[in-house]
Amino acid sequence: MSFTNNTKEVLRLLKDAEGYISGERVARGLNISRAAVWKQVCKLRKEGFCIDAQPRLGYRMVIPPDKLIPMEIKDGLKTSFVGQEIFYYPKTESTNLIAKNMAMDGSKEGTVVTAEEQTKGRGRLDRNWLSPAYKNILMSIIFRPEVQPSQVFSLTMLTSLAVVKAIKTITTLNALIKWPNDIYIGSKKIGGILTEFSAEQDRVNFVIVGVGLNVNFDPSIYTEIKDTATSLSKALGKEISRVELLRSILEEIEKGYNLFKEGRVTQIRNEWDTHSLIAGKIVRITSFGITEEGVAESVDEDGCLILLDYKGKRKRIFSGDVSLKMMAS
Amino acid sequence: MSFTNNTKEVLRLLKDAEGYISGERVARGLNISRAAVWKQVCKLRKEGFCIDAQPRLGYRMVIPPDKLIPMEIKDGLKTSFVGQEIFYYPKTESTNLIAKNMAMDGSKEGTVVTAEEQTKGRGRLDRNWLSPAYKNILMSIIFRPEVQPSQVFSLTMLTSLAVVKAIKTITTLNALIKWPNDIYIGSKKIGGILTEFSAEQDRVNFVIVGVGLNVNFDPSIYTEIKDTATSLSKALGKEISRVELLRSILEEIEKGYNLFKEGRVTQIRNEWDTHSLIAGKIVRITSFGITEEGVAESVDEDGCLILLDYKGKRKRIFSGDVSLKMMAS
Repeated sequence: MSFTNNTKEVLRLLKDAEGYISGERVARGLNISRAAVWKQVCKLRKEGFCIDAQPRLGYRMVIPPDKLIPMEIKDGLKTSFVGQEIFYYPKTESTNLIAKNMAMDGSKEGTVVTAEEQTKGRGRLDRNWLSPAYKNILMSIIFRPEVQPSQVFSLTMLTSLAVVKAIKTITTLNALIKWPNDIYIGSKKIGGILTEFSAEQDRVNFVIVGVGLNVNFDPSIYTEIKDTATSLSKALGKEISRVELLRSILEEIEKGYNLFKEGRVTQIRNEWDTHSLIAGKIVRITSFGITEEGVAESVDEDGCLILLDYKGKRKRIFSGDVSLKMMAS
Repeated sequence: MSFTNNTKEVLRLLKDAEGYISGERVARGLNISRAAVWKQVCKLRKEGFCIDAQPRLGYRMVIPPDKLIPMEIKDGLKTSFVGQEIFYYPKTESTNLIAKNMAMDGSKEGTVVTAEEQTKGRGRLDRNWLSPAYKNILMSIIFRPEVQPSQVFSLTMLTSLAVVKAIKTITTLNALIKWPNDIYIGSKKIGGILTEFSAEQDRVNFVIVGVGLNVNFDPSIYTEIKDTATSLSKALGKEISRVELLRSILEEIEKGYNLFKEGRVTQIRNEWDTHSLIAGKIVRITSFGITEEGVAESVDEDGCLILLDYKGKRKRIFSGDVSLKMMAS
């Protein structure tokens, strides 16, 4: 949906007002009729904004609008294709699922799906992904790269990197990436990337990259994750603007994706390595029921972890769950 | 849909009759009412059979039922899961597309989609796939193997192999496989496999394997393919039963898939090699705009062609179009 200047101006006046602002004042300010103001208020409500209307008092923005509303995210977004189309769901099964269906139906590259709450949120290997409504970032992007299936991991890499960089920009916190697809602050998880794709033998049709990120959320409300998860607000000691953070993530993703399209995968991988939680550390990896230990050296272009075992042998680990043998001092 | 014995018996009587058979005779034969016979005829018509009904004369099967009707295919099908569910479309966009949508909605492994005609039939890399109605085999199968994306090529392999074996059984013709996904008789193409899949980084959600096979079709009707394509009827000099051939293909696919699930990929690959059109031959391969020449040695487990070039170097070719430098004598 595209919005007229009037819609944006009405939104601006409502946001700037302390308490109620009369329809007449808004109408006069924009040189439009009171009926036209009412029409704009209806449009904004449909978009997801909560606007109270009282006879004699006028209009009031009810909650500070830190919902992941497309109009809010796009306002000031410096990208040319990522997030130019955003679809917003207060509640849905999973943003990856919606994006997958949209991609099947031909939605274009860069299309973003955001949600406040997921009923079937999940991480890698169908693991549950917990997230209370209106607290975190849940979003998925459609990509249509002209690559082979083995190159898809680069999209997970560049998205992890984008998330870490955006966190740094908005909060100054240093987040790290834990192979293959998690984001950590210190020894606790704050987010994850879920990459899914549709392909033929030798080419990819589309890739969906989903991001789940704990922002203004207190993980102690879920016993399952209270000891292993954290959030940006917990690490920072205050809440932050989800809209601002998401905008920054989308901008970083576009930058990374442009590098990827230029074939600069080595640059992405090197940067990824410098933000790796496990690079150079002794790790234990459980993969398909087998546990291996060694030093996590790096990641190759297919996304395999290169593990140097105690006998000095190098192994490519395709997939697995990593734990650090000792936390970095 | 499942069918009662009555439906099957009515079908049998109609097929066996020379010309018309009266409703009364059918009713007496099965010890059911004439109204019940009429009900079964309606069921059969809905299933795709053309049955003429005339006052005083009775019923008559109009065309020999070599349509790819599920009831016909399942009659005598010796499989435990492949083709236990078959969905039949006289005309559809593409069986792979239907199967993909079904798989997204949770359809189970072994589900088959067949069509008589496709409006958007295609081969690898979106190339057009021509097939006139009611002449060929167009079908797709849903698989849900617990494997990584790099292992998907084995499904293309085992399906190619199943097609070649079924052709041998039903027609005694020796078809060969041309890497990566075509079926040939002599120097002409008679079919192709189109494998598509949905995956995460380290596991496959589902795989759709599509088969397009020229059976009772005269390729000279299409100028685009008249010099490069053939069909089984052309090679054999007579038409064959598509239903019988499809049944045999489904049975061979199930056997191959069971081997695959037991981890016997090497066995599949070895068998595939013995049916390869290009193994040991000098070939020219065009892949992503680059042309290479050499001897096609074998295929590795990821589906890459191992090419021995003129300098004695081995190369893994991921994807490409192959032409034989000289035809085998």
